[in-house]
Amino acid sequence: MCAAQDDDRTVGRTGEFAVIDRITAGRGQAPTTIVGPGDDAALITSPDGRVVATTDMLVEGRHFRLDWSTPRDIGHKAIAQNGADIASMGAVCTAFLVALGCPAGTPMSVIEELNEGLWREATRAGGSIVGGDLVASEQLVISITALGDLQGREPVLRSGARDGDVVAVAGELGRSAAGLALLDAGVDCGADDALAALVRAHRTPLPPYGRGPEAADAGASALTDISDGLIADLGHLARASGVRIALDRAALTPSDPMVRAASLLGADAGDWVLTGGEDHALVGCFRTPPPSGWTVVGAVRPGSGVVVDGVGWDRPGGWESY
Amino acid sequence: MCAAQDDDRTVGRTGEFAVIDRITAGRGQAPTTIVGPGDDAALITSPDGRVVATTDMLVEGRHFRLDWSTPRDIGHKAIAQNGADIASMGAVCTAFLVALGCPAGTPMSVIEELNEGLWREATRAGGSIVGGDLVASEQLVISITALGDLQGREPVLRSGARDGDVVAVAGELGRSAAGLALLDAGVDCGADDALAALVRAHRTPLPPYGRGPEAADAGASALTDISDGLIADLGHLARASGVRIALDRAALTPSDPMVRAASLLGADAGDWVLTGGEDHALVGCFRTPPPSGWTVVGAVRPGSGVVVDGVGWDRPGGWESY
Repeated sequence: MCAAQDDDRTVGRTGEFAVIDRITAGRGQAPTTIVGPGDDAALITSPDGRVVATTDMLVEGRHFRLDWSTPRDIGHKAIAQNGADIASMGAVCTAFLVALGCPAGTPMSVIEELNEGLWREATRAGGSIVGGDLVASEQLVISITALGDLQGREPVLRSGARDGDVVAVAGELGRSAAGLALLDAGVDCGADDALAALVRAHRTPLPPYGRGPEAADAGASALTDISDGLIADLGHLARASGVRIALDRAALTPSDPMVRAASLLGADAGDWVLTGGEDHALVGCFRTPPPSGWTVVGAVRPGSGVVVDGVGWDRPGGWESY
Repeated sequence: MCAAQDDDRTVGRTGEFAVIDRITAGRGQAPTTIVGPGDDAALITSPDGRVVATTDMLVEGRHFRLDWSTPRDIGHKAIAQNGADIASMGAVCTAFLVALGCPAGTPMSVIEELNEGLWREATRAGGSIVGGDLVASEQLVISITALGDLQGREPVLRSGARDGDVVAVAGELGRSAAGLALLDAGVDCGADDALAALVRAHRTPLPPYGRGPEAADAGASALTDISDGLIADLGHLARASGVRIALDRAALTPSDPMVRAASLLGADAGDWVLTGGEDHALVGCFRTPPPSGWTVVGAVRPGSGVVVDGVGWDRPGGWESY
């Protein structure tokens, strides 16, 4: 993708400003946008009087591969992982900013598809793309900032879990890891809908954005999204709260398609559930029973770290850069 | 810089989370920060009920060179160019998010110096660094998002200029371009304070942040910062406002050190003033005389485009990616 292709509509030949005109034209903004793309900065309503903000960078070859994901999928995923961070504070997404670095030879079709994926998922998350930047780089690099509004809620931090809380999950666990493993092994999932759905879960995760504000309204004491892996992310939460998280493996069973995929690959589907990242499920701690749709997977105990069926986890718990 | 060096404290060997711990430790947050680094997202006050947001990405070899700028200078510049965009809406900076991509072999000393530059300029701009991301990439890539508060002012857009307004500048013009030309030619400015100051203007531009809110309070009809070049940026403003900007070259004379640098290099110092970017001066349009400290450089007329002493500019007006 990095080399010039037959498509002579490349980013370099189109030029920075014409590309920006192309990708912003005809895009309707959310009601929260007062000033959208085209000025020195955007202006967004923050009726709560506070604004939630997070940023994540995705790098070609590291966070995505253009032979495994379409540009549309990559745009989707870039928004999803940032939007999930907003949700996991108990907030709703209002706006996204997109800084994009790409080689001059990048076909305009790649940029247009990427833009489509960004916009679709931004809309699903409840916000719009209010601004950005476009620069020349050797690798495709996408940096997203998401903004959100708490609508009067108190933010739900990682540090509020207390002994006796239940731990509950909303969303998928390990499906993205299973899909990645299938891609990595080159398994052709074309005719197998259930396996293809795992690959789709890797390419286009669907964070349960609305579950974040719901958890906050239900009095969640702590909340985070699972981007690195359940054990890794609960490890951060346990450390921030000064508690131990005791997981119950019986509540964390993989689905049948995941078991089947693991069997095909000689892998452990249970490990995908415990350590797979990028599904962007939410995990929260609750002093009272969690709302319906949340699955209780463990409890908060005195101590430190994360244990599974009472035993400490001594293998990598999930993703870490480098 | 990209290769591993004798310094065995590299980013890769230190690990993502330890690096983040290192660069966030002991940094005091601005009073506007409610939740700083370490959770899923940051939380910042936005008392105005609206938030200004902008993002810019800087790529090694394209926007900076590690043999021409120190990591500290690069951090400074990354904040400055984003903070200037906030100022040019008439807002004050409240917070910055920093997404950083760098090779595993990057020495920790580079990251620490970069971080120092980021923090110093963020503090000068009036905000703090509330969050970020750290990922592995082939090139050093820095993506900054700046947030700002209008404090009740209406945003000053590029689109408000009207026939009869005066055009005025606050800050430096062309000094960064002169410094870049000196670096590019390999001129040793060591013993010549005035030339060294031009190089410093390129490495560490000092946007006049306070002039943005000041211009808004003085009723500026349009405002932008000069990141690409005076003619290029006024071209955007003229197009957005549907007007012509008529510049008066007599009001845009280069300083003596710039004339001297141009003479050394066989360049035109006047062109640096008109087309040099990256000083991040502010240029505004005013219906009444601008506040003291602003220099009137032209007027708004009916028509389109930018003219200098009545003549259209037919050379490149400034920077464009690709």
